[in-house]
Amino acid sequence: MTDRKTKGREIRNASYGAEGVKYWENLHAISPAHADAIHEYVFGTIWDRPALDPRTRHLLTLVIAVSMDAMTEVMMQTRGALNRGASREEILETILHCAPYVGFPKTNHAFRAAKSVFDQWDEKHEDWKPLVTE
Amino acid sequence: MTDRKTKGREIRNASYGAEGVKYWENLHAISPAHADAIHEYVFGTIWDRPALDPRTRHLLTLVIAVSMDAMTEVMMQTRGALNRGASREEILETILHCAPYVGFPKTNHAFRAAKSVFDQWDEKHEDWKPLVTE
Amino acid sequence: MTDRKTKGREIRNASYGAEGVKYWENLHAISPAHADAIHEYVFGTIWDRPALDPRTRHLLTLVIAVSMDAMTEVMMQTRGALNRGASREEILETILHCAPYVGFPKTNHAFRAAKSVFDQWDEKHEDWKPLVTE
Amino acid sequence: MTDRKTKGREIRNASYGAEGVKYWENLHAISPAHADAIHEYVFGTIWDRPALDPRTRHLLTLVIAVSMDAMTEVMMQTRGALNRGASREEILETILHCAPYVGFPKTNHAFRAAKSVFDQWDEKHEDWKPLVTE
Amino acid sequence: MTDRKTKGREIRNASYGAEGVKYWENLHAISPAHADAIHEYVFGTIWDRPALDPRTRHLLTLVIAVSMDAMTEVMMQTRGALNRGASREEILETILHCAPYVGFPKTNHAFRAAKSVFDQWDEKHEDWKPLVTE
Amino acid sequence: MTDRKTKGREIRNASYGAEGVKYWENLHAISPAHADAIHEYVFGTIWDRPALDPRTRHLLTLVIAVSMDAMTEVMMQTRGALNRGASREEILETILHCAPYVGFPKTNHAFRAAKSVFDQWDEKHEDWKPLVTE
Repeated sequence: MTDRKTKGREIRNASYGAEGVKYWENLHAISPAHADAIHEYVFGTIWDRPALDPRTRHLLTLVIAVSMDAMTEVMMQTRGALNRGASREEILETILHCAPYVGFPKTNHAFRAAKSVFDQWDEKHEDWKPLVTE
Repeated sequence: MTDRKTKGREIRNASYGAEGVKYWENLHAISPAHADAIHEYVFGTIWDRPALDPRTRHLLTLVIAVSMDAMTEVMMQTRGALNRGASREEILETILHCAPYVGFPKTNHAFRAAKSVFDQWDEKHEDWKPLVTE
Repeated sequence: MTDRKTKGREIRNASYGAEGVKYWENLHAISPAHADAIHEYVFGTIWDRPALDPRTRHLLTLVIAVSMDAMTEVMMQTRGALNRGASREEILETILHCAPYVGFPKTNHAFRAAKSVFDQWDEKHEDWKPLVTE
Repeated sequence: MTDRKTKGREIRNASYGAEGVKYWENLHAISPAHADAIHEYVFGTIWDRPALDPRTRHLLTLVIAVSMDAMTEVMMQTRGALNRGASREEILETILHCAPYVGFPKTNHAFRAAKSVFDQWDEKHEDWKPLVTE
Repeated sequence: MTDRKTKGREIRNASYGAEGVKYWENLHAISPAHADAIHEYVFGTIWDRPALDPRTRHLLTLVIAVSMDAMTEVMMQTRGALNRGASREEILETILHCAPYVGFPKTNHAFRAAKSVFDQWDEKHEDWKPLVTE
Repeated sequence: MTDRKTKGREIRNASYGAEGVKYWENLHAISPAHADAIHEYVFGTIWDRPALDPRTRHLLTLVIAVSMDAMTEVMMQTRGALNRGASREEILETILHCAPYVGFPKTNHAFRAAKSVFDQWDEKHEDWKPLVTE
């Protein structure tokens, strides 16, 4: 039986690829307890629930990132959404939708962050493409 | 040709019913310019775009409301999401998804707010059901 | 020579009247150090500087209150602004101006809070009118 | 062996008493997955770590609650801090310390919320006192 | 008759100059609908209302930028305020006024951002000076 | 008798060393009134109170910095906490404790910021070590 941490790493890898491995395993080196919680609880429990599919979860998380004005996370969710089947149009529309609720400054930042992901997509493909566990 | 303010009021009515009429027309009495912007720009332009359907837009806006710890808006989006075809399970799952990103306190508040909408659904049905313009 | 705490209480009284006395003296009973800082530093130092007049300071503080989604403070600043010479139109325009930057939900709340102050203005006049120290 | 959810409920009970049972078991009825995460991960893993004692954890969480302007949580953390050995003076000093960093409005709210807990302490003692599992 | 989008671009140009053209036209290339809303609704409707003059609107927006800890926007509003007739002293006093309400860290950041605009004012004058439409 | 501003600078120097001198004296050059308030009120009044020791105050302020997603401040508080006797383990545990309350993204950022301070500790020791006034 696959335990939740292993399952969480698989879900993480399918969303964020080699860049995600680097990001969360570096975090694991700083705080194992924190990274364990992310792998076991966030990816291995919440994201594993079938009530919402990964593509939708990335769009919801993108909205949170826009609300928090957190551009690292806007870029991560944009990459994850693309890897899980969202189109560029859906991603831009999701950011557009936030504008009247969170204000224009945060939305302006997010559009530019998403665009920077689109622009680097081909060049960074090796780092960003899904890693699928056999 | 339907202008954007009229279109916006139709979209509003289909999401929020009589309670929405009261909410935004009261706001119109306080600041006509503000309510006009909401009807013309938010509902009549953004929400009218086909790239995301109303059900999805309500779930995205629900996430913003949870992020802002704004319970009036959590309750409004819960009602709108139900009117536009989301299930109670999807609404609860959307709130659950927010927990690791926005923190547990805001999520706790949101679960209770959504639950209070579910509990009042039958009793308040006349005020909350969609108003459809012929 | 008037010390800064005394000066601060005079400025407070001219903005918030008897209701302000009650609010900050109750706070003084809970934490003298905190209320002293408010009287000495906030009202007695910052607000006493001539580079911005009290009417402008209330409009700026109103904007902060809208940004924080803090309705008690929106109502306090609305009362202070009116006591210091701002018109109802300027107060509503200040709230309107915030909408595209802080988002519509917070602005909606603020319009209703300001309106509730306008509506109670005559009835609450004894508590809210400026107290002027001889 | 005590599992983490059971351990988490014990830690919760020692901090929040019967009122905490009611709060989180009601939440469990709305979203079992969410309440399970709180019991297993927040109380049963984080709070169980010896690197910080429960009294310190309540003061740290109180600071977060002040920063979020979340008065339900300020009151909960005040009760938890008292149950875990903090003095009223330490709680007030913790709130005072926040003022220059998070701003005076949030701190004003928090002082009043903490004071309301102090004022109800004797009357609500049955609901608030620690529940200790044998 | 000048339509609202054209009017909005004129108001934008008078506040932000060539740098503003670049900023919002780049945004237009990413999301035409979003930039259209900014030009039509934010600049062309809100900013065009006579109830508050542009100099005051920049100071109010500066306060929002400080509240949001958004340094790009603090710098933009500082430039706009200077272009619309505010003095450096008024800008610094506006930031100072925020300190007790939003906390010292955000205010510290804003002072440094405003100072960086003052320091680059002569060098960047061609990009930042108002563009006036004939 | 030592006045509060002088006392405040001593407390500042013992927490932040030469880097703190540079930071707040640069701020003094931009806004003397603001830096005076920090030295007199924040460091010279609040931090001088014996009800909480400096080590605890740094951990509390660290939590505020995590809550605000303010990495400059996370790094400053990490350095101050180390200078005032906190261990690296206590600092990491304090950040870990924030995760369920403020969300994982802010906590992820904070872990990396604290780690960067640990990693530069030896190299930057001259700038960061406490300055003690005779």
